[in-house]
Amino acid sequence: MQDRAFVSLTTDFGAAYTAICAGVVYSIAPSANVLVLSDEVTPYAVTEGAMLLRQALPYLPTGVHVGIVDPGVGTPRRPVAVVTGRGDVLIGPDNGLLPPAAEALGGAVDAYELADPAYRLPEVSTSFHGRDIFSPAAAHVAGGLAPSALGPRVPPGELCPLRVPPVTRDGDAVTASVLYIDRFGSLILAAGRDDLPATLAYGTPLEVAWTDRDGAPRTVRAAFAETFGSVAEGEPLIWVDSSGRLGLAVNRGSAATRFGLAPDAVLTIRPAPEE
Amino acid sequence: MQDRAFVSLTTDFGAAYTAICAGVVYSIAPSANVLVLSDEVTPYAVTEGAMLLRQALPYLPTGVHVGIVDPGVGTPRRPVAVVTGRGDVLIGPDNGLLPPAAEALGGAVDAYELADPAYRLPEVSTSFHGRDIFSPAAAHVAGGLAPSALGPRVPPGELCPLRVPPVTRDGDAVTASVLYIDRFGSLILAAGRDDLPATLAYGTPLEVAWTDRDGAPRTVRAAFAETFGSVAEGEPLIWVDSSGRLGLAVNRGSAATRFGLAPDAVLTIRPAPEE
Amino acid sequence: MQDRAFVSLTTDFGAAYTAICAGVVYSIAPSANVLVLSDEVTPYAVTEGAMLLRQALPYLPTGVHVGIVDPGVGTPRRPVAVVTGRGDVLIGPDNGLLPPAAEALGGAVDAYELADPAYRLPEVSTSFHGRDIFSPAAAHVAGGLAPSALGPRVPPGELCPLRVPPVTRDGDAVTASVLYIDRFGSLILAAGRDDLPATLAYGTPLEVAWTDRDGAPRTVRAAFAETFGSVAEGEPLIWVDSSGRLGLAVNRGSAATRFGLAPDAVLTIRPAPEE
Repeated sequence: MQDRAFVSLTTDFGAAYTAICAGVVYSIAPSANVLVLSDEVTPYAVTEGAMLLRQALPYLPTGVHVGIVDPGVGTPRRPVAVVTGRGDVLIGPDNGLLPPAAEALGGAVDAYELADPAYRLPEVSTSFHGRDIFSPAAAHVAGGLAPSALGPRVPPGELCPLRVPPVTRDGDAVTASVLYIDRFGSLILAAGRDDLPATLAYGTPLEVAWTDRDGAPRTVRAAFAETFGSVAEGEPLIWVDSSGRLGLAVNRGSAATRFGLAPDAVLTIRPAPEE
Repeated sequence: MQDRAFVSLTTDFGAAYTAICAGVVYSIAPSANVLVLSDEVTPYAVTEGAMLLRQALPYLPTGVHVGIVDPGVGTPRRPVAVVTGRGDVLIGPDNGLLPPAAEALGGAVDAYELADPAYRLPEVSTSFHGRDIFSPAAAHVAGGLAPSALGPRVPPGELCPLRVPPVTRDGDAVTASVLYIDRFGSLILAAGRDDLPATLAYGTPLEVAWTDRDGAPRTVRAAFAETFGSVAEGEPLIWVDSSGRLGLAVNRGSAATRFGLAPDAVLTIRPAPEE
Repeated sequence: MQDRAFVSLTTDFGAAYTAICAGVVYSIAPSANVLVLSDEVTPYAVTEGAMLLRQALPYLPTGVHVGIVDPGVGTPRRPVAVVTGRGDVLIGPDNGLLPPAAEALGGAVDAYELADPAYRLPEVSTSFHGRDIFSPAAAHVAGGLAPSALGPRVPPGELCPLRVPPVTRDGDAVTASVLYIDRFGSLILAAGRDDLPATLAYGTPLEVAWTDRDGAPRTVRAAFAETFGSVAEGEPLIWVDSSGRLGLAVNRGSAATRFGLAPDAVLTIRPAPEE
């Protein structure tokens, strides 16, 4: 992993601070190929970041992938490097952000704490560990350093898991939290295709129910659709996103805006009653 | 087009999904040089994307340029590769997005449908063709594949043209639609410098007229100015943008906000009457 | 500075126009390594851009760094290249944007006006000097051109300095302007750690005072804290940012939103009176 080693960065820092991290990588590993996967994860949204990493990393080259969404920066929580079955090294805080991606990349084979000051910047600030700890570690690994040199081994089973809200089924209804809202205002749920009846055909009308901000029950009918284009413009749909999760969208519109739904929403989906 | 082949990406996907496309390109063509031209085209705004590609690509290296603004994703519409006179290969949906850029790059010399599954990802989703169809095709071409290997030839004359709203002239007045609103809130029009009288001198006051959201007629005086700095701070101007189009701006301000103008606005510009 | 020369871009142009600049660099210097440090500096905010460059460039590789925040584009003001003690070449308008960064990189050793048309694009527009003047100059330097070939020497002492609002001390109180508001809504001040009493210990309560938009005096108590995590969620803090400046933040919240503070705010900080 030395000639044009691939390094990705995923943060909630915004463009400039993430680019500083890229600059640190290039300063230490000049021949690296650095891609910013995202610098716009919702601040502090560990679940959103974890879902993005899990969804995206299998499509990126095997390499060093830095993920930093770190509400606890400056307080005690381990910075870690996680080696995956595919051969990637995931670098970030041990707060649940990395394990789902590791699982999607062949599992967490090994993990190490980023402890050796030789692989940090000479001065470590209290508020910008992305620059001072995570990026230098990534650069050194991209440059050929064995991850085991970074610090003491952490048994993969002791990594902090991601706390994902549970999906519950009750008869033919499934209730799931929103994991994140994408750029188009579509809501991606914790539930997957398997949480709906296997026999459910595309085109079947579903009923989506939730409690609005004033505590009032709300429902909307939405077709179970293979593609956005399967429903008319402005119509809602439930579809299976490209990572296998259920989502609520509006064709050429924003489901979040249309239905007043926020990232903390909980939706119940069931076959729609006859009208 | 093999050693550090240049690949650009222009999408309405946002940062993360566009970076996934970059990751797919790097996975297939590790030595490629991928530049995100934009990941923030207004969702589904084919005209805005087409104008950006036409304006930008002549300044980018000859290479493979992927453009994806695709309201019809998941419904039947051809994915295509268009070979230009300059030697670029433009890749995207056949919905009018690519032809203006092709024209600016020496014309569409050849075109091919992205049909051969060998140059797609093994699994093609219904909602993310950028990742599964367009990016792999771009990567294979960047890696040296002849575009003609991608699928059946499409006669360039059969490519779907961009539908641009017409520019009309009536005496010394020109009426044109807004093509897009730039980041500074300036409105770029379908009309170009040639649509104004050739003798019009910088400094001449113009009258800009439109119908506001309540159906009421509105007019504003704006100087025909060579540069933003030619008018006082806060003053409106009509200028010729760097791609030759007329625009309505406010020096150090936002014309869209100031005049309540949206992307669907239609403006009529004429020499201002004496005050 | 020829083999994979490092070029960074910092602008207030947004993604697409900044990427066009990157494309121009790659067209002239195909082996360059271009990093966008930021394309989202607040439009026309020279101070914000200067602070970002000063904070970031020391962490980027020695190279060619283009900074463009240029309210005066199209009016007379010199485009310049500034050679730093570290060996970087900073390129941008001579409007105060570059000197603080030069100072952080070993000082401005030499400077040259970007005057020779051989190192501009063949056609120079009035509104997009980033593309037509600054990027080509950067690319030629990245490709090995001596900065002195760009045009007449400008004595470094004659470069336009950044006008930073003054920091004033009155007894144990320090009054300072906001330099910029970061993505999290934290306010970064012109004042640094040295402007507070040297004996001030972390945990000490401070009083922050300002005049609100209606002219009414406002105060809030905020702990002087080493890290965001040192105060409870939703609590304000004064901390020293990673470049040594004082900032007002809210742990996991936005200080700008919470206190209605804009980039033109002036804050007075003093030890809090006993409650």
